[in-house]
Amino acid sequence: RTNGRRLWDSLMEMAQIGATPKGGVCRLALTDLDRQGRDLFVRWAKEAGCTIGIDKMGNVFARRAGSDDSLAPVITGSHADSQPTGGKFDGIYGVLGGLEVVRTLNDHGIVTRRPIEVVIWTNEEGSRFAPAMVSSGVFAGVFSLEYGLSRADVDGKTMGEELARIGYAGDLPVGGRPIHAAFELHIEQGPILEAEGVTIGVVHAAQGQRWYEVVYTGQESHAGPTPMPRRRDALLAASKVIQRVNAIGHKYAPYACATVGMLQVHPNSRNVIPGRVFFTVDLRHPEDAVLAQMDADLRSVIAEAAEESAVEVSKLEQIFYYAPVPFDADCVASVRAGAQKFGYSHRDIVSGAGHDACYLAQVAPTSMVFVPCIGGISHNEIEDATPEWIEAGANVLLHAMLERAQS
Amino acid sequence: RTNGRRLWDSLMEMAQIGATPKGGVCRLALTDLDRQGRDLFVRWAKEAGCTIGIDKMGNVFARRAGSDDSLAPVITGSHADSQPTGGKFDGIYGVLGGLEVVRTLNDHGIVTRRPIEVVIWTNEEGSRFAPAMVSSGVFAGVFSLEYGLSRADVDGKTMGEELARIGYAGDLPVGGRPIHAAFELHIEQGPILEAEGVTIGVVHAAQGQRWYEVVYTGQESHAGPTPMPRRRDALLAASKVIQRVNAIGHKYAPYACATVGMLQVHPNSRNVIPGRVFFTVDLRHPEDAVLAQMDADLRSVIAEAAEESAVEVSKLEQIFYYAPVPFDADCVASVRAGAQKFGYSHRDIVSGAGHDACYLAQVAPTSMVFVPCIGGISHNEIEDATPEWIEAGANVLLHAMLERAQS
Ligand SMILES: NC(=O)NCCC(=O)O
Ligand SMILES: NC(=O)NCCC(=O)O
Repeated sequence: RTNGRRLWDSLMEMAQIGATPKGGVCRLALTDLDRQGRDLFVRWAKEAGCTIGIDKMGNVFARRAGSDDSLAPVITGSHADSQPTGGKFDGIYGVLGGLEVVRTLNDHGIVTRRPIEVVIWTNEEGSRFAPAMVSSGVFAGVFSLEYGLSRADVDGKTMGEELARIGYAGDLPVGGRPIHAAFELHIEQGPILEAEGVTIGVVHAAQGQRWYEVVYTGQESHAGPTPMPRRRDALLAASKVIQRVNAIGHKYAPYACATVGMLQVHPNSRNVIPGRVFFTVDLRHPEDAVLAQMDADLRSVIAEAAEESAVEVSKLEQIFYYAPVPFDADCVASVRAGAQKFGYSHRDIVSGAGHDACYLAQVAPTSMVFVPCIGGISHNEIEDATPEWIEAGANVLLHAMLERAQS
Repeated sequence: RTNGRRLWDSLMEMAQIGATPKGGVCRLALTDLDRQGRDLFVRWAKEAGCTIGIDKMGNVFARRAGSDDSLAPVITGSHADSQPTGGKFDGIYGVLGGLEVVRTLNDHGIVTRRPIEVVIWTNEEGSRFAPAMVSSGVFAGVFSLEYGLSRADVDGKTMGEELARIGYAGDLPVGGRPIHAAFELHIEQGPILEAEGVTIGVVHAAQGQRWYEVVYTGQESHAGPTPMPRRRDALLAASKVIQRVNAIGHKYAPYACATVGMLQVHPNSRNVIPGRVFFTVDLRHPEDAVLAQMDADLRSVIAEAAEESAVEVSKLEQIFYYAPVPFDADCVASVRAGAQKFGYSHRDIVSGAGHDACYLAQVAPTSMVFVPCIGGISHNEIEDATPEWIEAGANVLLHAMLERAQS
């Protein structure tokens, strides 16, 4: 059994770094605050007897030696970065939950057969630098190292530059070594577990995702003397897409999600008809074939709205795609067994969000543990969870990791 | 007759200050570039023998003495600030056109009975600081001095602070003195004159305007695990308003204009359902009663879209209003007479845009002279006009001002 109180306290201490007014955090990837969060984790991990390794993507590996230390490790972890107005559990719970497993093993003087590693994956959120999960993606060989290091934020700063600036450009190679099993502990970020009163989600799959960037170009012109029929309003065209993207989400109910989350207007002046609009689209579905239909629908919608508003599609690029991920049956079984052992209510669940575990699943047997979050709300400062859920998830993780680390 | 070549060259020299890649200018109000533009005008006006006065709103008055210098002056002028991606004629043409009138009078050794003043009105565009025409509004007593000086940009910097910073916080009182007549020379900023092949617009009225700021608040939440029916997407709600505002513009055709020009999404992250959206609405019509109906329509639309998307209207504020402006019949007649005298094709026209002249009309007999602009395009870097139009407008202004300055 882990020490739920200790884990909660560590989460609350970490949440001071980048704390926001409504109880959340803003710790965007590779900012000074992200560095402070990493530094705190590294200090705690060293105090718990771990050795620290950092790879070229800035992924941090805190390693607890096994009795047969040459064996492939069992790893766990998640991310320490957040959304601009993010919650204090998203990601960091999986990191500090992994640290709590190490601390608990220390408490009981248990030496596992295989080494254990607790990982911070760089830039999981994809908010400052798109796409999401980029560094676990490089680890899994899905993206090249060059691709990863060259991701740029809106100011043109690259992940490579920013890693160097905050002192987390390590020299370990990224991936390319055997991993015996991987687990990730996370809040659900959706409403299902809480609504059903279930404590543990046994995550057996994650839905597929497609992310797009779109630019419409119309004609900037004066909002006063330009007659309505002559307008080529890029924001009007984008507004049609926003509604039709929403309709795509409803069309493939109940599992589809379709969102326009980001939109920038140019020149963004009160009395100027918008000449250019940039926006993003995020489509998700657990079945790859449906996701492909949603992609086709999106492409029609973007072309139609452009035509209706006499604007041009200057950009339509799918910048991110991964197919739905089935997790490893044995790892899933270890999670389920953990929930059963502690007597927690549990159910199988598909992850709506992408997680570093989705990429790890390509190179190692992998599964995830979910706990509920209040109101199903995440990517929001008010994201919250109860101490009981937080402890339960860590206990299940402990069980699952122990089971695999002895095998 | 003015010297069209000299006026064109001055316009092109001024256009170097804040020049943008596509041939326009970015000279936002009270920036360093705005100061450079003002400095150049002040130098030229002094070289032309004018004395310079600056009032507390930073309005610059270049005065050419009359033979009876105690009489109320005839004034002309416009603005030197621009949109973020603005054109090189919008506003500054009226300022340098006025300077060209002074230079022409000098060329011919003419002393007018009344003094003549050429004015730069501070922050006409309303782009960096809303609303538009704020300093001519203070001059006309429509806004208080405190209101004018406290207008703030998105970074919270006020017009008062920025005037002091660029050295244009003068000490003349703002307005409160008799003006015999006021004229403003401007490009049309719309397509009518060019489409009809007419050189001079005799502006007898300006349409009314209402500007609004709206904030929708929904619930930020994760774009992956949040089921479609549970969403409270502030951008989805705003997208409905954008379309319905456009429909209001079409409903009151052919004269109505309705535009959403500015929109900001929070947190503006690809995988977060937008929790808050700020946007502006600009409604215009030549008849006040119709403008009031458009206002009522807008308020319904905003409430309906909020209800449909389960978001809240956190702000709905009309931040700017002026009723349609009829210009002075005598001043209008002077402009028409000028066009006739030079044999220019001309027609009466209603201004679609707001202009400093609209406020001056409250305190002095006022009218405007329009010339066409290519493709009817303004508030765009590619805004353009021919040297012939530019000269023609200045000739008409010269005639109208002379007629009034001798009376
Ligand atoms: N868990 C999480 O928020 N991941 C970010 C990637 C996604 O949007 O699914
Ligand atoms: N002329 C001009 O662009 N004025 C700005 C105010 C308006 O939007 O009408």
